[in-house]
Amino acid sequence: MNIRPKLLIFDVNETLLNMEPLKNSINESLKDERAFDIWFPTLLQYSLVETITKNYKDFSEIAESTLKMTAHQLDVSLTAAQIKSVLSPITKLSAYPEVSNTLEVLKEKGFKLVALSNGKPQVVDEQLKYAKIHHLFDKVLSIEEVKNYKPHVSTYHCAYSLMNVLPEDTMLIAAHGWDIAGAKRAGIQAAFIARPGKSLYPLALKPDITGSNLNEITTLLLAL
Amino acid sequence: MNIRPKLLIFDVNETLLNMEPLKNSINESLKDERAFDIWFPTLLQYSLVETITKNYKDFSEIAESTLKMTAHQLDVSLTAAQIKSVLSPITKLSAYPEVSNTLEVLKEKGFKLVALSNGKPQVVDEQLKYAKIHHLFDKVLSIEEVKNYKPHVSTYHCAYSLMNVLPEDTMLIAAHGWDIAGAKRAGIQAAFIARPGKSLYPLALKPDITGSNLNEITTLLLAL
Repeated sequence: MNIRPKLLIFDVNETLLNMEPLKNSINESLKDERAFDIWFPTLLQYSLVETITKNYKDFSEIAESTLKMTAHQLDVSLTAAQIKSVLSPITKLSAYPEVSNTLEVLKEKGFKLVALSNGKPQVVDEQLKYAKIHHLFDKVLSIEEVKNYKPHVSTYHCAYSLMNVLPEDTMLIAAHGWDIAGAKRAGIQAAFIARPGKSLYPLALKPDITGSNLNEITTLLLAL
Repeated sequence: MNIRPKLLIFDVNETLLNMEPLKNSINESLKDERAFDIWFPTLLQYSLVETITKNYKDFSEIAESTLKMTAHQLDVSLTAAQIKSVLSPITKLSAYPEVSNTLEVLKEKGFKLVALSNGKPQVVDEQLKYAKIHHLFDKVLSIEEVKNYKPHVSTYHCAYSLMNVLPEDTMLIAAHGWDIAGAKRAGIQAAFIARPGKSLYPLALKPDITGSNLNEITTLLLAL
């Protein structure tokens, strides 16, 4: 029996924002329709390499470094300026069609809404403003607060603590199996948005709620 | 000025063993020539998800789980039995052509040789036996000893401690930027083998030695 959460923590990239423009930019410049699909898990892997070795570099730096490595793997050579340019669509992503209206409904129904991204603060702010959803959040957080990358448990603990909410009253909403795994292991509830191509990590605890978009998640949330 | 190390720790997959047969198996079954290149960083990412959330699942389980996720991403459905079969070439990989002879030379010259893999003990043993290089190592280690995945510093610390060698007399040899990053942060020396498509992680300390294969590394090592 789930308890209706008071605080909803939203992952940003791929959960709220459609990364298609960044995907296209990377695939075109690296001349391979799978370049983005190789780079993205590499970026996530290296963010965890930093955390696990007790080091911190911001997500943009790691994104640039791993894109350079992916380009090398695909036999493409890019200058530092080209790499920045290829990655520039990251701050010009649209929200998925249902996101804006659904966040408004959730806000009206009394949920506290927080965005929590691996991205550095200025990038997350810029992203949510471009997508016209920044004003709907009670707080916009970057993992830079704790300098550990998700799914390190400290990132979730920090988010509900800053909002003065108990872990059992908190739910993470994400389109990534690793984020769901981390949230459940941090002792908070979790909702999985099964965006196209995304799936749960079979070795993790199951999320409390699953839907194919944020509308479906919201319907299930309001029924709690 | 480098000090000639007494102990050489070798990464296994892609460093000593050519993963081409596994790559072909995965690409054929997932019907995409980039399937392996998407799956492999995903496997490494999720191994770190486990370590960062203080959890442990063996590498084979994580490999199967992330292959299932990658198949879903590429819109292919595989049964558990099919996944095991697709991954089965992992224990039938050949060593790169220069590896066997070079390990013999290093052994003759008095270096202690250790293999250290993320793979579980029985898999690493089987791999090195199939490749006919198992007998050349003084010790074959899996990170299962410490239940943290590389590049967690405990994995390197455990390896030189078990061999009763000081960190400054130890060198990791690997074809992966993340492994080099971890070794340097663990306070040991590092040699990078720039296998095709592989590159260093730009945000890490530089390795002490770089070569395009193990012969080149050996020549540089013997000159120290």
